[in-house]
Amino acid sequence: MSRTDTATAGEALARYLHTQAGGFLRSLRLHGESGADTAGAAEAARSLRSSARRISGSLSTFRPLLDPDWADALRAELGWLSATLALEHACTSRMVRLLDALSRLSGTSPVPRARTEPVPLSAHGTSAHGPGAHGPAEGGPTPRRGGALTVGAARAGALLERRLTLARTRAHSAALGALGSARFHAVADSVALLASDLPLAPAAAGPADEVLGLLAEAGERRLLDAVAELPLGRAAHPYNAEALVNGLASDPAAEQQDAPWHEVRRLLRLHRYAREVLRPGDDPVLCHAGLVLDHHREAADASEAAADAARTPRIAPATAYALGVLHADQRHEVEAARFAFQQEWRHATAAVPAP
Amino acid sequence: MSRTDTATAGEALARYLHTQAGGFLRSLRLHGESGADTAGAAEAARSLRSSARRISGSLSTFRPLLDPDWADALRAELGWLSATLALEHACTSRMVRLLDALSRLSGTSPVPRARTEPVPLSAHGTSAHGPGAHGPAEGGPTPRRGGALTVGAARAGALLERRLTLARTRAHSAALGALGSARFHAVADSVALLASDLPLAPAAAGPADEVLGLLAEAGERRLLDAVAELPLGRAAHPYNAEALVNGLASDPAAEQQDAPWHEVRRLLRLHRYAREVLRPGDDPVLCHAGLVLDHHREAADASEAAADAARTPRIAPATAYALGVLHADQRHEVEAARFAFQQEWRHATAAVPAP
Repeated sequence: MSRTDTATAGEALARYLHTQAGGFLRSLRLHGESGADTAGAAEAARSLRSSARRISGSLSTFRPLLDPDWADALRAELGWLSATLALEHACTSRMVRLLDALSRLSGTSPVPRARTEPVPLSAHGTSAHGPGAHGPAEGGPTPRRGGALTVGAARAGALLERRLTLARTRAHSAALGALGSARFHAVADSVALLASDLPLAPAAAGPADEVLGLLAEAGERRLLDAVAELPLGRAAHPYNAEALVNGLASDPAAEQQDAPWHEVRRLLRLHRYAREVLRPGDDPVLCHAGLVLDHHREAADASEAAADAARTPRIAPATAYALGVLHADQRHEVEAARFAFQQEWRHATAAVPAP
Repeated sequence: MSRTDTATAGEALARYLHTQAGGFLRSLRLHGESGADTAGAAEAARSLRSSARRISGSLSTFRPLLDPDWADALRAELGWLSATLALEHACTSRMVRLLDALSRLSGTSPVPRARTEPVPLSAHGTSAHGPGAHGPAEGGPTPRRGGALTVGAARAGALLERRLTLARTRAHSAALGALGSARFHAVADSVALLASDLPLAPAAAGPADEVLGLLAEAGERRLLDAVAELPLGRAAHPYNAEALVNGLASDPAAEQQDAPWHEVRRLLRLHRYAREVLRPGDDPVLCHAGLVLDHHREAADASEAAADAARTPRIAPATAYALGVLHADQRHEVEAARFAFQQEWRHATAAVPAP
């Protein structure tokens, strides 16, 4: 436990928000100074969004300690900012994901992707992730030969690149516009005043550990309830074919089946941020589970981008065929992410705290 | 152990071949009598192929006990017959599989398919097949609504149905032609003489248990060697994306990666038939592993049929898109079958014989 031991809940929350506001303003300055350095600008935007998400999350979880109208208003503005800034990055990573997948499906990528394995965790030792699972000594993957992309895959790649580059350019302009707007300056002003001028409610006078702990627990309960609603038993059965079950349906059922997973992703984030207020550092298991759900979201969005591209008028059948394969591939990544999350979650809930 | 205890190897083999020849000739008579009863004719053809495979398999495994030229010649003719008769059935089951999959992908099938679970085996109790994996109490699969087939899926279904019906009609004519041919009558004559007039080699005079056992073991060793060459470690890692890795490649790498699995399927069959010669009845684990590899083969063939159909000139992009999704779906069934085989095999080799 940190210095929150003897502080009031309001003081501890103000301290955390002060740190995040500092990060927010520092990222903003770096972004302004980045100029032609696009990598620097992207990193500054990422950092800005990270701080904005944490501030917004704290305003949500610890809302009873704050002036609710003020908290809700700032949260809405931070949500607008995050969404606007996130779009450009999302377009870039979607394009990379889809072109990587096309290259893998064409047998032209040198190394096959291991799906949904963002970070090796502590020794889980499950059968599925057992040692040597990818060992080349066992025959391993089929060796790649520099097989040419089929015409369809090449055209599908070009079509996706065109569409996503256009979307990214638009998102970039929108982000620049947002950062120069009066609306943004008002947000930045509010963030600057966060630590010094936090409008607290009476409950904030209570002891930090107890009051913050109770509110964080309530957030955790919302997360656990949402996870309990997920079809984890089905997800635990590999190759259950659930993610693609409406892959050709005309109704939006596919998106509907994704929604509860996206909601768990959101609640897991809130839970992680709430834990940060109580104690510094991130829980590696929660962090990993969050990454898996990020993959879930990215694959779902990418599969939709492939389906959307296939609705382009006058494309060749070979292009449409490649986009169909790509769509199904990404829906299987969605299913793979669900399987991985289910494993993470089982370990997280079964494990005793690491020494 | 059965009556083979005191018999010579030649006598025991002749007894088994006699049984199979009886089945072959009985099926042939039933097929001739079936007339307009297509279900009866199909069942008779299935039974005929089953006997032909067993005779051919025994001629292969126990070849050192027989006149090798005679055995090889009859085996080639039985292979021709089996292949000719199998085609019609394969077209039918491929069509059913693909139309089922299209219906599932369109969200119009009432119950989602559980992949590659042909027969529940003895209590495996693995995490992947754990109890309640499909329990509706846990949220379960997304409920189906009678969502209309998309235009593309409906057209893809019609195209596949047309193509496979044509192929089936051709296969039916070819099978009828084969059964009426002089070549077939020569095969039937050879089979009728199998038991009474088996051309044995000197080694057939040895004791049945020892000699047949040694040859069956040699066959089992070929199977084990072939399984050892399979990338089972990779197959054990669910969602490894290996089966689709050349899904859009212009070279025939996809079929190349399937070949070792098809070869194991063939050797597993030979091993099962060799065991039947030694002792009556089938091993349920081997039988189940064989069914899983049958699924592997059927899914691989179906995925190819979808890809072939997509090469039809002048199809609509929506049709091609649906065929792409279908192709990828079947390649994932291929991957699922590999995962299931790997699990079966691990259990089969780890398990002590059931009491």
